[in-house]
Amino acid sequence: MTIKTNILEDSNDIITREPLPASTKVYVSGTIHPDIKVPMREIQLANEHKLRVYDTSGVYTDPSVEIDVSKGISPIRKAWIASREVEAYEGRILAPKDNGYNSEEQLEQATAGSLGLVRTPLRAKSGHNVTQLHYARQGIITPEMEFIAIRENQDRAMSENYLNDPEREARLRGNSFGANLPEEITPEFVRQEVAAGRAVIPCNINHPEVEPMIIGRNFLVKVNANIGNSATSSSIAEEVEKMVWSTRWGGDTVMDLSTGKNIHTTRDWILRNSPVPIGTVPIYQALEKVNGIAEDLTWEVFRDTLIEQAEQGVDYFTIHAGLLLHHVPMTAKRVTGIVSRGGAIMAKWMIAHHQENFLNTHFEEICEIMKTYDVTFSLGDGLRPGSTADANDEAQFAELKELGRLTKIAWKHDIQTLIEGPGHVPMHMIKENMEKQLEWCDEAPFYTLGPLTTDIAPGYDHITSGIGAAMIGWYGCAMLCYVTPKEHLGLPDRDDVKEGLITYKIAAHAADIAKGHPGARARDDAMSLARFEFRWVDQFNIGLDPERAREYHDVEMPMESAKVAHFCSMCGPKFCSMKISQEVRDFANEQEVSVEEAKKIGMDEMSQTFKEMGSEVYIPSDK
Amino acid sequence: MTIKTNILEDSNDIITREPLPASTKVYVSGTIHPDIKVPMREIQLANEHKLRVYDTSGVYTDPSVEIDVSKGISPIRKAWIASREVEAYEGRILAPKDNGYNSEEQLEQATAGSLGLVRTPLRAKSGHNVTQLHYARQGIITPEMEFIAIRENQDRAMSENYLNDPEREARLRGNSFGANLPEEITPEFVRQEVAAGRAVIPCNINHPEVEPMIIGRNFLVKVNANIGNSATSSSIAEEVEKMVWSTRWGGDTVMDLSTGKNIHTTRDWILRNSPVPIGTVPIYQALEKVNGIAEDLTWEVFRDTLIEQAEQGVDYFTIHAGLLLHHVPMTAKRVTGIVSRGGAIMAKWMIAHHQENFLNTHFEEICEIMKTYDVTFSLGDGLRPGSTADANDEAQFAELKELGRLTKIAWKHDIQTLIEGPGHVPMHMIKENMEKQLEWCDEAPFYTLGPLTTDIAPGYDHITSGIGAAMIGWYGCAMLCYVTPKEHLGLPDRDDVKEGLITYKIAAHAADIAKGHPGARARDDAMSLARFEFRWVDQFNIGLDPERAREYHDVEMPMESAKVAHFCSMCGPKFCSMKISQEVRDFANEQEVSVEEAKKIGMDEMSQTFKEMGSEVYIPSDK
Repeated sequence: MTIKTNILEDSNDIITREPLPASTKVYVSGTIHPDIKVPMREIQLANEHKLRVYDTSGVYTDPSVEIDVSKGISPIRKAWIASREVEAYEGRILAPKDNGYNSEEQLEQATAGSLGLVRTPLRAKSGHNVTQLHYARQGIITPEMEFIAIRENQDRAMSENYLNDPEREARLRGNSFGANLPEEITPEFVRQEVAAGRAVIPCNINHPEVEPMIIGRNFLVKVNANIGNSATSSSIAEEVEKMVWSTRWGGDTVMDLSTGKNIHTTRDWILRNSPVPIGTVPIYQALEKVNGIAEDLTWEVFRDTLIEQAEQGVDYFTIHAGLLLHHVPMTAKRVTGIVSRGGAIMAKWMIAHHQENFLNTHFEEICEIMKTYDVTFSLGDGLRPGSTADANDEAQFAELKELGRLTKIAWKHDIQTLIEGPGHVPMHMIKENMEKQLEWCDEAPFYTLGPLTTDIAPGYDHITSGIGAAMIGWYGCAMLCYVTPKEHLGLPDRDDVKEGLITYKIAAHAADIAKGHPGARARDDAMSLARFEFRWVDQFNIGLDPERAREYHDVEMPMESAKVAHFCSMCGPKFCSMKISQEVRDFANEQEVSVEEAKKIGMDEMSQTFKEMGSEVYIPSDK
Repeated sequence: MTIKTNILEDSNDIITREPLPASTKVYVSGTIHPDIKVPMREIQLANEHKLRVYDTSGVYTDPSVEIDVSKGISPIRKAWIASREVEAYEGRILAPKDNGYNSEEQLEQATAGSLGLVRTPLRAKSGHNVTQLHYARQGIITPEMEFIAIRENQDRAMSENYLNDPEREARLRGNSFGANLPEEITPEFVRQEVAAGRAVIPCNINHPEVEPMIIGRNFLVKVNANIGNSATSSSIAEEVEKMVWSTRWGGDTVMDLSTGKNIHTTRDWILRNSPVPIGTVPIYQALEKVNGIAEDLTWEVFRDTLIEQAEQGVDYFTIHAGLLLHHVPMTAKRVTGIVSRGGAIMAKWMIAHHQENFLNTHFEEICEIMKTYDVTFSLGDGLRPGSTADANDEAQFAELKELGRLTKIAWKHDIQTLIEGPGHVPMHMIKENMEKQLEWCDEAPFYTLGPLTTDIAPGYDHITSGIGAAMIGWYGCAMLCYVTPKEHLGLPDRDDVKEGLITYKIAAHAADIAKGHPGARARDDAMSLARFEFRWVDQFNIGLDPERAREYHDVEMPMESAKVAHFCSMCGPKFCSMKISQEVRDFANEQEVSVEEAKKIGMDEMSQTFKEMGSEVYIPSDK
């Protein structure tokens, strides 16, 4: 990998900046903390209504903000963090091996262009704890908490006027399986949920650029996207664009799973430009430092890597501390053994040394580091099943139980904690995962990969897993790690990332509706009304992917006039179910209607529009 | 639409005939009826194993069979049907309006090339009933029933040897919600299920080409694909190819929703060449005959259309007989009114005439026609919700209750009956649909469209609905009507049809696994073993879409050597979780292993393969 040193040259042009169609970025201010500005995407509809939706895309979709990826985005949390018991300090010295090099010269060459992205790290002052969980337990509502309360509500009052009907509300009421979903999310509710450990706000004090978000089952279900560095090309903008692209399509957090050369520097690029929390699996970099030989890993190398990444601002760490030596033989009879990379690394280390997992034996020391920077634990499931045949087996649940024990230790230190989960699980075995996790991990938020509900569709595992993700989200899972169509086959490209994200936004949203998250239905109802009223452009713009919706409609009806036509290519203008439904309303309302008259007017109008379009009534159905 | 009269010229070349990779068509004979030949697809694996899978693709994927679409495929059921109480008769005379024409000349021109596909119709002799339900109730096991028993078992004994482990079997046992899934499907079990009305075998006596299949919750979940005729082009082969393409990707039945000109003749083309049951919505053609004016529909026009289509061999009719006049006002407060085309037609007719639905008032007469040809009822849900906001409302359930009443009437006539269902339903409201349907319709098989679990993703409604389809399939739905990515936006093209079908095969299969259908897991387990053993080509071939799987793998690792490589592009050869799992087995088995030694051998081998491939270790992750 060659680092382009002339990074400024046009590199910002690579970044996707265009707002989604008909969308404006609006900011809502706080009350307790008036300086907070919560971003939302406001979609302008053709009928004068506006719809505000949750917006993960950060300042990139705000055309009024100038962005230079070589300098980083605005550190919106800087003042909030500065007011806490933190101190700047010199920090760890960047070593050549952090970027995969052997000499200072190589390192200097690689990092020359990135100096504008290196910051002096902060840490909690000695004897102090600066985690959100710590503040929550003190009864303090941080700016992050109020930010989140506003963000989760999404100006519901503004959107909610769509369908005011008590019968409908009673009929559609969700089944939350014990989740507690208040009508309005207050800052105090956010504080309580964080204090109880039921929700986390991943926000390292060294990542002031993050727009606060929350992960917990009493909030909107979140989605994570994984990205990795490129081996062949690399400008700052190219690596940043992967993160921007992911957040554009709804990624609530991004995990940077980069490997190989320049991972430290790439991480600086991403963090300084990321409005969403960034997660990593530090053992991956630690393994790089020992040349990929798992047996050569040591606690010291790992510890150093944790500090390195915490100083950079990583918001949550996946740490496979729950996998114990005596769990390893439990996987021997599995169909697909150990498929988690982190799990396999630790298993290999344990086998080689015949010793207990050093991540487990040093867990308290890890906690000391985590709380110094408010890094959130994402306790990894190294024994997640790699096939539906291995789902819910002894090994998986033994590790989950240990994760529950570790959660209590983390909480003792006021460290925010997520629990990672499977993987591959048939539909009928998904709920057991959620139930055991809630019980054994005392309601710490669950964060699962899928799960895939069948193994027979490589190339479509975003779908096999989207089914499982929607279900476990409904049952209470707080965050869903996306799966792309390339899963099991290769590395996702830009289109795959988008496809995976949209699939997972569908899963998360379907879960929010089923749980009964107040306000989740607003977007569905706005879409359905647009559909009934033939506001085609609104249908495109309200949807998760306005571009694709319009493109598909364009295939048969590309003319602009078709975007306001009172029919579609499915039935054509001669006959339209939706149109008849309007007549039904008249019928029901008046109980007597001159149908001939109504029909005549309707048909004439249709016929005219039709002539203007010059289209055919019946369009080829599958050619 | 211009009919190409020179239909023989190369037209058969359009038909997709190539077997799927590594697949051979095998036929299994019957015991009770030794002349039956049940087709299966046998996949040859690299490890000498073979995997037999359910095969809907008919003779088209059997290279030993010559096919000429202008003559039709072999009528495999001809002798079985001939042995029953049936008689040939002159049948209805084809009228110009059947094909949308006004003169005999136009008709002749349009049908000139299709004479090889016109058959003399059969009907039950007066006073006799030739339905499968009638025979089942008489205690008769028809050849169709034995065919189905063999087909549903899929030579399980052959595949089942993959994972023989009592612990695993107990752990993975399905939750069938009261379905009865025996270890082996016997012909007698098929008979009992048909006799009880819990399953149907759609097989018009005038469609002898059909390979018998069954729809019922105690069998494999089935998938339907909709196709329509082309307005612009049309040779027999082009229309037949749509059906062939759908069955190639797993369509168990096909609904022909053609409209406009030449629908009668197109139907001949499809039926004479179709190995799967064909369904239609006869009211669509009836509406054509009255120039698209719903108010002008009459019982006589509809009755004539039923006979016309029954004589051609349509296997099941969607009939919206459950929608009653007093249901119509119940839809007035809906967000999206009536979205079923058939429902809207009948609502419009009822409003215009202020009369009860003639499909309901003439239901007994419809029954007389249905049983004469063994056409299966698919009682339509004209009031299915068109948005999640309208799910499970008064209108929907009022109609469902009426469908239950009609089911009992149909059964009185020994007519096989399916019940159609929604549509758009949030996840938490899906189960209620299944429960009410089972209760009110006395376990008659349920056949649903999706349901879509959210409305916010036009362009991805195969996924929003695939989630709901998988769930309702698990709960007991017998057949899932596919939804393509173009739903709500336009008409599906060839790629959309395939995408919709694969999504729905995933849903159906995930449901089979969750229900605990014996043998459903065989394919998943074969895949997982291939994955663990790095048999890449087997992974492609076992999957639902071998072409896409290989194509995706080719992006980073196109070399043939990569198809046997013991690693993949995700981690590269330097580190591989799967490989480590092998070491875990050694560890567990021996409890003492020279890991250094094992590692050294492994790494050397990897390193060599790696050099041969000339690939990079870490490949770009999203570029």
